[in-house]
Amino acid sequence: MERTGDVQVVIVGSIGLDTIETPFEKRESLLGGSVSYACAAASFFTRVGMVGVVGTDFEDDHMAVYRRFGIDLDGLQQVEGHTFRWSGVYDADMINRQTLSTELNVFEHFMPVMPESYRGARYVLLGNIAPELQLHVLDQVESPDFIVADTMDLWINIAREKLLEVIGRVDMLMLNDSEARLLTDQYHLRACADTIRAMGPRYVVIKKGEHGAMLFGPDGLFIVPAYPVQTVTDPTGAGDTFAGAMIGHLAQNGGVNDGALRAALLHGAVVASHGVEAFSLDRLVKLTPEDIGGRAAELQAMIAV
Amino acid sequence: MERTGDVQVVIVGSIGLDTIETPFEKRESLLGGSVSYACAAASFFTRVGMVGVVGTDFEDDHMAVYRRFGIDLDGLQQVEGHTFRWSGVYDADMINRQTLSTELNVFEHFMPVMPESYRGARYVLLGNIAPELQLHVLDQVESPDFIVADTMDLWINIAREKLLEVIGRVDMLMLNDSEARLLTDQYHLRACADTIRAMGPRYVVIKKGEHGAMLFGPDGLFIVPAYPVQTVTDPTGAGDTFAGAMIGHLAQNGGVNDGALRAALLHGAVVASHGVEAFSLDRLVKLTPEDIGGRAAELQAMIAV
Repeated sequence: MERTGDVQVVIVGSIGLDTIETPFEKRESLLGGSVSYACAAASFFTRVGMVGVVGTDFEDDHMAVYRRFGIDLDGLQQVEGHTFRWSGVYDADMINRQTLSTELNVFEHFMPVMPESYRGARYVLLGNIAPELQLHVLDQVESPDFIVADTMDLWINIAREKLLEVIGRVDMLMLNDSEARLLTDQYHLRACADTIRAMGPRYVVIKKGEHGAMLFGPDGLFIVPAYPVQTVTDPTGAGDTFAGAMIGHLAQNGGVNDGALRAALLHGAVVASHGVEAFSLDRLVKLTPEDIGGRAAELQAMIAV
Repeated sequence: MERTGDVQVVIVGSIGLDTIETPFEKRESLLGGSVSYACAAASFFTRVGMVGVVGTDFEDDHMAVYRRFGIDLDGLQQVEGHTFRWSGVYDADMINRQTLSTELNVFEHFMPVMPESYRGARYVLLGNIAPELQLHVLDQVESPDFIVADTMDLWINIAREKLLEVIGRVDMLMLNDSEARLLTDQYHLRACADTIRAMGPRYVVIKKGEHGAMLFGPDGLFIVPAYPVQTVTDPTGAGDTFAGAMIGHLAQNGGVNDGALRAALLHGAVVASHGVEAFSLDRLVKLTPEDIGGRAAELQAMIAV
């Protein structure tokens, strides 16, 4: 990606060095974290700025990967200490996983700072980090057109009040099906979405992993399946990739409406399906706009009636 | 339904009196079984004939339900003894269930016999029963245009050889995702479908319950989501309802091709979504063509990009 010009999309989230074990392979110190996946995915569609933190152990090679995507790194802080580390192991189904260890390291005292050049960005994705940090970002943006927040079960369990504050201030909340049920204490996803929309956001996206995603908004319901891949090498970051590609596509097309959102979700599903074909950002780094366009057309043909 | 004329679709399967416990309610001796659900669903689209067996305890009220759907009952045998009985209990998610008891009764010595008037039927659905019985039906039909077989994990486990014989003689195999994996020893559904298609059938439909269904055939892949219902009262028979509505819709539209199959699967999903809103055939018995058409249009709008 060779993109220059103003940052259109700002994304905040975690940067981690992941150790991941699947039934087939174990890999150590992989470049990961929600903002890595989301920025890489968004970069195919627009100029994206990263807000995150790494330690002094973060390698030049990793920075070089970000640069290959053309990601603006003015919001990336490098501070004394170790980079956040996560390790996990996937079950045989390559869907469920257990976290083996989490070392917050420099992430423990992370305070996101938006560079001046990001403050006018029209699209903001609050990647999956503590709601308190998401609020700090919200306090620093001027008046973006569209703010999306991602979250996870951890924050619903330990930081519900702050999370509700975030939810009240964003245009779209994105979370997975079990998290939607946990947050709302409802079972049917339409009821979950109605409850969440009553908390503030006009739009709710419920992610269902290998079963796709659902968009709930003022214009009704849109259901997009996942692209059925032949191989899943590592599903880590698929949800972040989906979110990043979605907001990047929205920004590229310059407006938020039902049709634009449907196309954006479809492209989110497509880029996420590429991402899981390799560890870390290994597949995304080689991905071309032609790969994305080809698979988007294929997925569209798979759902046409 | 007031349908007369030649039987277009013949369906064979089980007829049971079901005792079903959900987290909310327990109901006894409900009219059920694969052929009950499938024939009721198909009857909205075409003239359907039932092949099955009941005992002398089968009530006139149950027969009356079949007649309300306009189902042709020439292939329904009533013999000395008790009707097949099944009881099961659903988990809190209303998806997973445990079988509490199965009493084969008259089903133990069931030998399906096709009445003369059914033998020219152009569409045949071999509902979920022992593969040996499915083969008996295949031996009695002349040259239908399209034969669909449904199956379940039980037959894959205890009657694999006979099941493979069925699979080699049908145009479409329908089964759920875990069954497709069990049958093929593959994980990814595209690989499962490729393996099954190499066994004979041109088409494979993999059902994914509340996540919809996938059609694999010579013209590629079609994915239809389930219609997201607001209430699930009893999911029993949803797969049979889906199969019955699908084959009925195909027969109504008079030809099997990619476009007709896509529309048929969509209508299968729609009628199945109505069916789970009540126990037994209680919702289907009140369903109108307008209900079906309305929800089909709604589902189509939910997947349009």
